Amino acid sequence: MGRVTVRRPVLRLRAAEEPIRRPDTLAVEEPLEIRVAGRPLTVTMRTPGDDFDLVAGFLAAEGVIAGPADLATMRYCADATEQNVLDVLLADGVAPPGALTERAFPTTSACGVCGKQSIEALRSRAPYDLAADAVRVDPRVLSTLPERLRAAQRVFDRTGGLHAAGLFDASGEPLVVREDVGRHNAVDKAVGWALREDLLPLSGRILMVSGRASFELVQKALHAGIPVLAAVSAPSSLAALLAEESGMTLVGFLRGESMNVYTGAARLMV
Amino acid sequence: MGRVTVRRPVLRLRAAEEPIRRPDTLAVEEPLEIRVAGRPLTVTMRTPGDDFDLVAGFLAAEGVIAGPADLATMRYCADATEQNVLDVLLADGVAPPGALTERAFPTTSACGVCGKQSIEALRSRAPYDLAADAVRVDPRVLSTLPERLRAAQRVFDRTGGLHAAGLFDASGEPLVVREDVGRHNAVDKAVGWALREDLLPLSGRILMVSGRASFELVQKALHAGIPVLAAVSAPSSLAALLAEESGMTLVGFLRGESMNVYTGAARLMV
Repeated sequence: MGRVTVRRPVLRLRAAEEPIRRPDTLAVEEPLEIRVAGRPLTVTMRTPGDDFDLVAGFLAAEGVIAGPADLATMRYCADATEQNVLDVLLADGVAPPGALTERAFPTTSACGVCGKQSIEALRSRAPYDLAADAVRVDPRVLSTLPERLRAAQRVFDRTGGLHAAGLFDASGEPLVVREDVGRHNAVDKAVGWALREDLLPLSGRILMVSGRASFELVQKALHAGIPVLAAVSAPSSLAALLAEESGMTLVGFLRGESMNVYTGAARLMV
Repeated sequence: MGRVTVRRPVLRLRAAEEPIRRPDTLAVEEPLEIRVAGRPLTVTMRTPGDDFDLVAGFLAAEGVIAGPADLATMRYCADATEQNVLDVLLADGVAPPGALTERAFPTTSACGVCGKQSIEALRSRAPYDLAADAVRVDPRVLSTLPERLRAAQRVFDRTGGLHAAGLFDASGEPLVVREDVGRHNAVDKAVGWALREDLLPLSGRILMVSGRASFELVQKALHAGIPVLAAVSAPSSLAALLAEESGMTLVGFLRGESMNVYTGAARLMV
């Protein structure tokens, strides 16, 4: 399971050097088709490996499942020569997902789709009350997370092409770190691992991501019950808005001892 | 048209400094629902602005349109209080798009979905023959593009949260540079601008992107007839495979005078 990297020849140009042809290591990107009870649901471009976690995390973020008991079985499609089709059977009584984009951005007859309305719709179906999570976080612990994330990344240093997402406790100890060409996938893999370990909601935990914090990442953290999201780079406007509405602590530009706290600063021991 | 950035308060922590609360600038992220003849097609999270270009580029990448004559009208939905729903009328005789994910990743009864098969499917419907594009590119020109891209970016320096995509000619002159929270959107906006200016296919042109080169970016360049794709960061395995199959020159890790040429090195004057 998982060709995470491949080697292929590359022509390398460097200043004041002769061009040389040598092998280079690339992060693998392949499509994964997710089916529910045999019905195609979506296709995501992902790095193979931890596919069951990826699918579990994706379904949790969409509000379809909340724990391991909601999953009956997951298996690769037997006909496929490559492991790029994964079929999920949900447990009895678990409602299958509808058309995902329609559900995430409800379109009324008045055709009003905007960030605000999406946030209202999301808040109403968020399964956990993050505002009630009383965890406190030391900024000195947060400062250690980017390095811990990098240390746990197995592939980035070889390809430069993978995003990472890690779950940490408030003392900075890692629970799990996952990598993927897609940063949403890396988060789904980390959260999906936790779901399958029956650790949801992830109260008191910190989600650390290697890139930016978008609306979708905040949404995924919210649906996993994670009270603190920290990112190496910038958040978007809608990420900050949803984090604020949800009672989530959102930290951006976390680099060494520097960080910007966009929402939920009361959780930080400053 | 377009709230590209917003200001919001942030608690700023820096080593050996007192925490201070001050306003910070964030890149705006909002949903855009794209409709074709009133029928919802997809929702993308994007930075407002250049929405018509975004939609034109998206439809070009999906193989729906190839030039301005294929578009009848584009307009924001009149009922929406915010400009987040855009309706497209295609010209007579232009086939409307089907279900996009199904089309991009055809699922056969044998359920074989894999990178290889997707590439075969894509190659058969690519409208332009990139291998026939005889343009030659000087690596010294490529070396100037990241800085030119940055110079043309209007917002990045304030938010750190936007990707950029630029079209350049072989002498390094920019045609257009666009920014977005989503790097696919930045490419769609640049290509869509070119389509509406009736510049497709973009023979002899270079597409420069600020981040990584994924499968989808190669696919978008292919559908715009662009023979050279250059990225600041790493390509994925499938990006390199599709570029090779398409006769596209793919350059990664373009930083100063250093670069890696993954495919189509014959176009480089080395």
